[in-house]
Amino acid sequence: MSYLITGASRGIGLELVKQLLALPEPQVTKVIALSRGAPPAALQELLDNHTARSTHVTASVDDTESVKQAAKAAEAELGDQGLDVLINNAGVFGEVFAEGARFIAPEEMLRVLDVNVVGPHRMTAAFLPLLEKGKQKKVINMFVKSHNYRPSIGCADVRRRSSTLGSIAMSEYFTFAPVPPYKISKAALHMLNKQYALEYEGKGFTFLAVSPGWLKTDLGGPHADLDVDVGVRDVMRIILEATPAQNGHAVGIKVSGNDRYDGKEVPW
Amino acid sequence: MSYLITGASRGIGLELVKQLLALPEPQVTKVIALSRGAPPAALQELLDNHTARSTHVTASVDDTESVKQAAKAAEAELGDQGLDVLINNAGVFGEVFAEGARFIAPEEMLRVLDVNVVGPHRMTAAFLPLLEKGKQKKVINMFVKSHNYRPSIGCADVRRRSSTLGSIAMSEYFTFAPVPPYKISKAALHMLNKQYALEYEGKGFTFLAVSPGWLKTDLGGPHADLDVDVGVRDVMRIILEATPAQNGHAVGIKVSGNDRYDGKEVPW
Ligand SMILES: NC(=O)c1ccc[n+]([C@@H]2O[C@H](COP(=O)([O-])OP(=O)(O)OC[C@H]3O[C@@H](n4cnc5c(N)ncnc54)[C@H](OP(=O)(O)O)[C@@H]3O)[C@@H](O)[C@H]2O)c1
Ligand SMILES: NC(=O)c1ccc[n+]([C@@H]2O[C@H](COP(=O)([O-])OP(=O)(O)OC[C@H]3O[C@@H](n4cnc5c(N)ncnc54)[C@H](OP(=O)(O)O)[C@@H]3O)[C@@H](O)[C@H]2O)c1
Repeated sequence: MSYLITGASRGIGLELVKQLLALPEPQVTKVIALSRGAPPAALQELLDNHTARSTHVTASVDDTESVKQAAKAAEAELGDQGLDVLINNAGVFGEVFAEGARFIAPEEMLRVLDVNVVGPHRMTAAFLPLLEKGKQKKVINMFVKSHNYRPSIGCADVRRRSSTLGSIAMSEYFTFAPVPPYKISKAALHMLNKQYALEYEGKGFTFLAVSPGWLKTDLGGPHADLDVDVGVRDVMRIILEATPAQNGHAVGIKVSGNDRYDGKEVPW
Repeated sequence: MSYLITGASRGIGLELVKQLLALPEPQVTKVIALSRGAPPAALQELLDNHTARSTHVTASVDDTESVKQAAKAAEAELGDQGLDVLINNAGVFGEVFAEGARFIAPEEMLRVLDVNVVGPHRMTAAFLPLLEKGKQKKVINMFVKSHNYRPSIGCADVRRRSSTLGSIAMSEYFTFAPVPPYKISKAALHMLNKQYALEYEGKGFTFLAVSPGWLKTDLGGPHADLDVDVGVRDVMRIILEATPAQNGHAVGIKVSGNDRYDGKEVPW
């Protein structure tokens, strides 16, 4: 099976590339790692260790033309086999607005929506012809179960915490900080997933929104719940087990003994 | 009480201006009608009939600078009393993509998000200082209960309907046509409403997402469920009765004898 992962340069995307390439053929025949720049060292090493089964394409998910070019490059690579699984993982957290939602620059909100919502749309639209040729026809959208996030608190609370919590103030600040554009974009992505699912219902497709848990990446920060490999391990299970019966659904990871990660369906 | 309504040129916004001005003082002391162009005849007539209690301001909700100017104009009008109720009603349906979601131009999706999501954010951000001075502190965001919409159907179904349904083909087409950007934008708006609500929790504010029902306007089309005055009548009740206990909630209209419009809370 062939996989394309966006945002493969670091974090969850990089770990997905790693864990996919650790699986044998024919379970994984090809991994296409997409990133907007040249592959960083960690990704390059993975690619070098699996030259026959991996390849890199460059694109920025907020640049329509580059996404179209990436689809052409992938087509040249995959040929008549098409693409089996598209993983829309690339995303941005956006600026943190400790002073409150009303100070969010409209352009910043629009930028986050562009990358996190229109980005997966650009990718899905460009790769659908390849997915139609593929056997699995899975599209994975990385979203967020909103209750994974602590409620936003005001600036005063952030300051109070900062002064009492000393050196971990910055991470606390990020943990609790209000990020409305991010949350808004992920709610919209959930609906995008649903809309594509409805349209491709009964055509062998599985559009699945996956909540990977709160993971220690640049985005999740050092105080996240789980190491990235732990979260991605279960994201892998979800992707591999996904069937058209789940088309349009949203699921979270399952971590045994952790009732925050119970693997249940996320209701819309 | 003072009200500002965006998208007052026609449809639901115009009807809100009309029904608000039909209420006596002190229930309604001032209605500020915002539209992006000069008031059309129907709005101008309302303004002319209520010169003491109504005024018009020009702004486009997708233009940050014009929204800031509108807030200045409103402040000059309202003075120390501030603004009591902000109604974020302006919105666009976006293009209808009968050929399928993947043919949606990314720029079009971004435009719909800009008007329907970032627009209410621009308005809320600019008018919060005035709302803080006001007595009611209500912000109404017009969203959509997604189950009010029939599921999207594919192009083939649209064509089949078109050929069998003859002259009403076009309206059927619009009713059933897939409008992912619109639905995505309204899901995001719901989350925007929630985020502001969380931040202003316990400060006397009521951020409320209101689903007006499927109404016969340019956006709703001629085959919608209800006449605009019927739907707006109950939107008015919801706005007038809203209390901070509902902060962050989403509610739909209630129409007696119509189980589609049962007035129930919309779960997130
Ligand atoms: N970590 C968590 O706790 C968590 C929880 C829930 C959901 N998620 C979601 O999981 C996904 C990955 O998160 P992460 O924690 O791995 O984030 P991350 O460490 O910040 O990595 C983000 C990735 O997205 C890429 N990216 C950003 N903008 C892009 C663009 N315009 N075009 C192409 N690629 C772009 C980045 O590339 P560059 O290196 O070039 O910047 C990077 O590879 C995101 O969608 C995130 O919302 C994460
Ligand atoms: N009708 C329904 O069935 C229905 C159902 C659920 C929710 N809603 C929501 O209710 C709201 C009003 O809908 P409607 O049916 O009255 O729509 P409508 O008849 O199409 O009117 C839309 C209004 O929004 C204004 N507008 C559009 N873009 C704008 C911008 N950039 N800046 C300022 N104003 C702008 C329009 O002004 P111009 O005249 O200048 O274009 C017009 O006044 C929308 O948010 C809609 O999503 C409607």
